[in-house]
Amino acid sequence: MNIIDGGVTTPDGFKAAGVHCGVKYRSLDLGIVYSERPANAFVGYTSNNVKAAPVQIMMNQNSPVLSAVVVNSGNANALTGRRGIEDALSMQSTTAKELDLEPENVGVMSTGLIGRFMDMHKIRYGISRAVKELDSGREADARMAEAIMTTDTMKKEFAVSVRLTDGTMVYIAALAKGSGMIAPHMRVLHGTTLSIITTDAKLSPAFGEKWQEILDDTMNMVSVDGDQSTNDMAILMANGTSNSSFADEDPEFVEALTYLMTKLAKAIAVDGEGATKLIEVEVTGAKTKDDARNVAKTIINSPLVKSAIFGSDPNYGRIMMAIGNSGSKFNIDEMRLIIKGGEMEVPILDGGAPVFQEERSVEVVRMAMDNKEVTIIVDLAAGEESATGWGCDLTYDYVRINAEYAT
Amino acid sequence: MNIIDGGVTTPDGFKAAGVHCGVKYRSLDLGIVYSERPANAFVGYTSNNVKAAPVQIMMNQNSPVLSAVVVNSGNANALTGRRGIEDALSMQSTTAKELDLEPENVGVMSTGLIGRFMDMHKIRYGISRAVKELDSGREADARMAEAIMTTDTMKKEFAVSVRLTDGTMVYIAALAKGSGMIAPHMRVLHGTTLSIITTDAKLSPAFGEKWQEILDDTMNMVSVDGDQSTNDMAILMANGTSNSSFADEDPEFVEALTYLMTKLAKAIAVDGEGATKLIEVEVTGAKTKDDARNVAKTIINSPLVKSAIFGSDPNYGRIMMAIGNSGSKFNIDEMRLIIKGGEMEVPILDGGAPVFQEERSVEVVRMAMDNKEVTIIVDLAAGEESATGWGCDLTYDYVRINAEYAT
Repeated sequence: MNIIDGGVTTPDGFKAAGVHCGVKYRSLDLGIVYSERPANAFVGYTSNNVKAAPVQIMMNQNSPVLSAVVVNSGNANALTGRRGIEDALSMQSTTAKELDLEPENVGVMSTGLIGRFMDMHKIRYGISRAVKELDSGREADARMAEAIMTTDTMKKEFAVSVRLTDGTMVYIAALAKGSGMIAPHMRVLHGTTLSIITTDAKLSPAFGEKWQEILDDTMNMVSVDGDQSTNDMAILMANGTSNSSFADEDPEFVEALTYLMTKLAKAIAVDGEGATKLIEVEVTGAKTKDDARNVAKTIINSPLVKSAIFGSDPNYGRIMMAIGNSGSKFNIDEMRLIIKGGEMEVPILDGGAPVFQEERSVEVVRMAMDNKEVTIIVDLAAGEESATGWGCDLTYDYVRINAEYAT
Repeated sequence: MNIIDGGVTTPDGFKAAGVHCGVKYRSLDLGIVYSERPANAFVGYTSNNVKAAPVQIMMNQNSPVLSAVVVNSGNANALTGRRGIEDALSMQSTTAKELDLEPENVGVMSTGLIGRFMDMHKIRYGISRAVKELDSGREADARMAEAIMTTDTMKKEFAVSVRLTDGTMVYIAALAKGSGMIAPHMRVLHGTTLSIITTDAKLSPAFGEKWQEILDDTMNMVSVDGDQSTNDMAILMANGTSNSSFADEDPEFVEALTYLMTKLAKAIAVDGEGATKLIEVEVTGAKTKDDARNVAKTIINSPLVKSAIFGSDPNYGRIMMAIGNSGSKFNIDEMRLIIKGGEMEVPILDGGAPVFQEERSVEVVRMAMDNKEVTIIVDLAAGEESATGWGCDLTYDYVRINAEYAT
């Protein structure tokens, strides 16, 4: 696997465009990704019971093949009732008509404010312009990436080339947006982070199960605020243009895709609303996989842990409080807790009590926490399962951004 | 029921004291409540799997009768291993010796920093001083109330007198501390909010079940940050000094006790770390009681909802996002959502979509939110069950307090 400078149109046969159509005041707000050959599609949807209109129509159609995905930012088309459904269907059919496709072969994604009706004049105008501007190359990638951003402060795109075991060289590119309302728990067929992954490798429809596994280990392990969006969606499009054999089981391919999705997950955490630090939690020694995931998520979602890390406040008892709340099994006498930051790796627990008791020695913990990336390593000493999760600190800016969002 | 100006020593036969023993730098940090007659005791404990040492020893002893409760603030005696257990037992036996009681008739509570060993010289000195100062009256109440505070900015004590159906006049007083790490889920026999309720009414040991019910509807429905403490405990002491008949089933008594516990719950929410507003969530039309409670708690724990209310930002879509994440059943087409503040009561939903779409009309919602008390009323249109929960907004000060706690 080679990490390359690339975007959604790097894999063979993909084009993209991003335009400004007026949903947002100035920035790009509508994008299309188009595959010249119909692509086998694998989609993960939010499991929030309040689902945005585009999520509802896509789940309903459950189309195994997509040739295009149309995305708008600025308006989530969520909590918009029957009219929202009509608008999402209209986004789909307008795009299909412009591209000479069947509506069900067009994916629809929306992100932005909840509870406002779409201005479909603007959207239809945007679609028609975007279709005209479809192109491949880094300029097109960049415009597409910008069009789906909301409170994001950086583009999240990554690409790799992989030589499959059959000798074919394939490309995979991954694009995501997401900064707040991030705690995806996406189910394949049935997170607001939107992601689009394009590849010219060939995948069979059976790849859906593997896609769920990869989502569970990557995107579904990110949390900025524990609030799962109504709009989360992750679309993987495999158009097979490389003429590879099926890459479903190819370890090189699976490794590369997992790598990209992990990069996206961490990029979303780093760019969490107001975030100044990335928090990574590595859990080992869990009795079950669910136990491992629960511990990682409970730590990453705890406002007390998140604020302590913001202030490099060595209040490690809060990590234990979170572990206790996770409901997961642990062996308090043998469990290990390590806080890692920069070059420092500081063990915290010894026989169920903290190693550090005195103000002066606690200073070491503060130094480890005073880094852009803080890693919390937990060995539950109760089994063999493990999981990793990503989040960010809770800051004044998170509060500011979210106290003024609709304004 | 009459609301009176009173505290823990208002019911007949109770004394209290609060002293400074040096766990904290200046303020009172150790208190004792003492009942001249052994009191039937009903205790709710945190369900966090990491339990502080005093919680562990109390659960283990499960004593049905308590004559005294000793409490320190400044150190939680949590995550302190075997030494912590010994220290909690020593707090208990020292108090017992000074008061000529059996150790198992002394309740022990701690609150403060997690993960530091207690300085037992200070604690033992404090106990011996407090025992000498035991007294009844408003001065003693106030010192006890102050001794258990941590980041609390106000005392939380309430009292009522109730005439039972048998004609006896009894008194009930309730005292609590709690500001952060508040999301109690206390189980009777088996929040860090500590609360002590004293009454001179007579209660049989069977009252435990009713006590669980009352906790579930009151203290267990408060959340400041969704983080359940390792130390939560609620102790109800009924010493029967009034010579009433058993008040277990007396509707007047149950109503008065529920009223007091609701007052405590709201007081803890109002005094949540950094809070500027009380949020009350009233859920009706739920299929099950658990559904109703889940919806209330999910809304109250959502950082996005909490920040929006801080900024009076009319982003009501976030409330729906939270309802969708609760896992509870709802009927989107018929459900109702109302935001109430001051004199204003603003309906939000109509047939699954928001009533307000234009910036100008949304202004009404902002005005309702711009109040010290914001009530969110949700009718899920899916059944007959209901629940009420309390929380507070997420503010810059919450972040500041918790980024600097251990420092």
